[in-house]
Amino acid sequence: MNAAYAELETRFKRINLLRQSAGMLQWDLETLMPPGGAGARSEQLATLSVLAHELLTEPRVGELLETAAQPNGLDPWQRANVKGMQREWRHAACLPAELVEARSKAATECELAWRAARPANDFKGLLPRLQTVLDLAREAGRIKGEAFGAPPYDALMDEYEPGATQAEITPLFDRLAGVLPELIQSVLDKQARGPAIEKPPGPFPAATQMALARRLMENIGFDFKHGRLDTSAHPFCGGVPDDIRLTTRWNEADFLPGLMGVLHETGHAMYERGLPSDWRLQPVGQALGMSVHESQSLIVEMQASRSREFITWLAPVAAQAFGGSGPAWGADNLVRIYTRVERGLIRVDADEVTYPAHVILRYRLERALIAGDMKLADLPGAWAEGMKNLVGIVPPDDKDGCLQDIHWPGGSWGYFPSYTLGAMTAAQLFDAARLARPEIPAFLGRGDFSPLMAWLRENVHGKGSLLTARELLIAATGRPLDPEIFLRHLRTRYLESA
Amino acid sequence: MNAAYAELETRFKRINLLRQSAGMLQWDLETLMPPGGAGARSEQLATLSVLAHELLTEPRVGELLETAAQPNGLDPWQRANVKGMQREWRHAACLPAELVEARSKAATECELAWRAARPANDFKGLLPRLQTVLDLAREAGRIKGEAFGAPPYDALMDEYEPGATQAEITPLFDRLAGVLPELIQSVLDKQARGPAIEKPPGPFPAATQMALARRLMENIGFDFKHGRLDTSAHPFCGGVPDDIRLTTRWNEADFLPGLMGVLHETGHAMYERGLPSDWRLQPVGQALGMSVHESQSLIVEMQASRSREFITWLAPVAAQAFGGSGPAWGADNLVRIYTRVERGLIRVDADEVTYPAHVILRYRLERALIAGDMKLADLPGAWAEGMKNLVGIVPPDDKDGCLQDIHWPGGSWGYFPSYTLGAMTAAQLFDAARLARPEIPAFLGRGDFSPLMAWLRENVHGKGSLLTARELLIAATGRPLDPEIFLRHLRTRYLESA
Repeated sequence: MNAAYAELETRFKRINLLRQSAGMLQWDLETLMPPGGAGARSEQLATLSVLAHELLTEPRVGELLETAAQPNGLDPWQRANVKGMQREWRHAACLPAELVEARSKAATECELAWRAARPANDFKGLLPRLQTVLDLAREAGRIKGEAFGAPPYDALMDEYEPGATQAEITPLFDRLAGVLPELIQSVLDKQARGPAIEKPPGPFPAATQMALARRLMENIGFDFKHGRLDTSAHPFCGGVPDDIRLTTRWNEADFLPGLMGVLHETGHAMYERGLPSDWRLQPVGQALGMSVHESQSLIVEMQASRSREFITWLAPVAAQAFGGSGPAWGADNLVRIYTRVERGLIRVDADEVTYPAHVILRYRLERALIAGDMKLADLPGAWAEGMKNLVGIVPPDDKDGCLQDIHWPGGSWGYFPSYTLGAMTAAQLFDAARLARPEIPAFLGRGDFSPLMAWLRENVHGKGSLLTARELLIAATGRPLDPEIFLRHLRTRYLESA
Repeated sequence: MNAAYAELETRFKRINLLRQSAGMLQWDLETLMPPGGAGARSEQLATLSVLAHELLTEPRVGELLETAAQPNGLDPWQRANVKGMQREWRHAACLPAELVEARSKAATECELAWRAARPANDFKGLLPRLQTVLDLAREAGRIKGEAFGAPPYDALMDEYEPGATQAEITPLFDRLAGVLPELIQSVLDKQARGPAIEKPPGPFPAATQMALARRLMENIGFDFKHGRLDTSAHPFCGGVPDDIRLTTRWNEADFLPGLMGVLHETGHAMYERGLPSDWRLQPVGQALGMSVHESQSLIVEMQASRSREFITWLAPVAAQAFGGSGPAWGADNLVRIYTRVERGLIRVDADEVTYPAHVILRYRLERALIAGDMKLADLPGAWAEGMKNLVGIVPPDDKDGCLQDIHWPGGSWGYFPSYTLGAMTAAQLFDAARLARPEIPAFLGRGDFSPLMAWLRENVHGKGSLLTARELLIAATGRPLDPEIFLRHLRTRYLESA
């Protein structure tokens, strides 16, 4: 270890403690804060963010990083830590301060305008502001791309997904896109031949849902000495690894989506909690990127919790909790509900089979927009065309079409691929976990996640950012991301099961 | 306005936003945080505190303050703001960093040891650690005293009570000490001749207490759009002026102390909320000091809420809330409960009449300890002697004697006087308020605090730290702190009322 490295560790510890503080204040803002606190809170958050940014971008950091990166006595964790520091520094330091500020301001204004434009179905009204956000993202992508020696879109993706490239992702998505339309049709055909689903009758009191959710969280391994479950308008997993703040919302007419929402967020929480505690406040101790994060939520929600084994255990537990009985509460019916496939307009409501088609559409469109190959004014038409080809349904308006997501108005370009990379990663990791620990399905059949979680702790959570996502996957599963595993999972669950 | 002043405002804004962030995280720690979050939280708080300290003590601040303090175009608020900045800077910058750290470390260790020593009645075991804390406080007092041109104890008091001096306080406290022993005896004699008190029978469900407390808070003027009420082990008023986080605890066997606790904290809250919003993040926009803060809680709790007028309104409201009836719920009985006087051992349980005697004892002892006129080993004996003379009761042990308070083990020397200065200030302000707005008692008799609060907003809250405490009192009441007003209040309420 050298002095430059030691100084960098001290500095990043401070940066991450500022971010942790901001994270807790953000959680409070979304769960408890009275409305009148908004102004003061946004000033607090801005100050913490500016201070962290200043600590990260001081010229001294660049010098220290050059020295620390020389061949020297660093161990693999420390070397990976320097890489993570370099990545953060490059992202923060390469942009002129005016561009960072303009990007943030434009995104805030456009997101606000979007909140009104979406219900009003007013794409044209949003267009000027969205154009500004896009132009600034293109400018940031250009500068970052030059600094990183990468195409602009890759440089933007790197903000969420370190090291991700179109060269790697495009063939994977093309393979899925080539199979999905037919697969969706086959699943719908099979579904049409099967029994109709029967909704368990409500109401489902919020307190009962909360109690059941807490029980399932504990089954998964969530430790309430190191976390809480609260309610918020939009469910999320916040807080810090030693104090996870998970949130959800309850619909008293239907407990099914809320329950799966909690399981999804608990997957995120288990990842955060399992990150290597020796490296808590260093870049190498952070989550690897959005696709691995999403894979951890989807392993719990999609792979494990929608398995027939788990639902067979869950059905009587849920029936007892809500005092329900009869065929609506049977495992067969619940499996049918939880694996229902539909051609829908809305990504966030999409099932496991159609979801990737929604994402691939957005990936293709945002690449074209960033590259300048498509005009923003042409987006609604391109959206309709893409939906028809990929999902097999055409939106009647922009409200439920290209205006539905917050990402672009909010300035997040290059984020969408993570959802489907995460779904593929989840399938591949779950596959490898079952091979290594064949008892996993039987344990899920008793509501017990412990062998699955033990394998994930060892092979994913505990690695932090020591490896790249690609290296991690090869180490854990023997190969890089392979779309055939995900497709096999879809076929097995949706076409071959009884 | 000059450039130096403008730069200082920017810097203090940042410092105060860091403190606000820390304040919110401290509130979370005491109300919601799961136990496993303690380690991460203490690191977050330490970082915010160190960053604020660094921003405050950079050498450049001293230079800017010299320039800004020159005669120039500053208005009175700006001039008072510079004074507040100077005071903060002097406190922070005059001590060597090692002493600041040693003080903080010794206090943390001694406070921890005290938590075990108090129940074990082990003064001797605590002595070495307490001696270290005292020695470091004396050293800090010496250095600050030299820097400020003030006696060491005055310099320590100044941390809590800007501008406070023994020369001013000692005669006031001596006057009270000369009257209180006889006054206490007279009150006890009168009490013995009156009817016995009758406790309203419980239990009192926490949810009902909470609903009643919220109603009373709204009567006082607390705005739930700008604040919350939650529970914590030790009630306090936290948060920031635009987002006040008030806490309390509920005893289901007795609603009376909990209710008065909420009223007390609401008094603090109304002060914070009423501070001048144009100066939110500047020293001149902060509360004036601990005695004025305490006066605001005591005006609500002691002056207004224990008045016969208010209790006459409260009695049927409380009876209805808890479904109670009969003489225990009568106004006369509740007045007797809320104005009960007893010679007790414990300061925090003391009534309005004996409380100042507890405080004066501590004031005299800590002055002697800081001056070096008394040895710490002699504290238990001096405590017993002082209790006998001032309160008229001798503690059977140290647990309920000199070990009862957290202040000295926790390193707070010079804090105690604020409690009684606050009680005197409250009496004097309430007196002036009733003179200016004679309708105040009648409004309290309808549970309505609005004329009282309007007067306090104008004469106290909205002034922030524009004036010194002495100047504020003269402006609002026509004279400096006068113990006769407080004594008249005690005689009127405890000897002359029916």
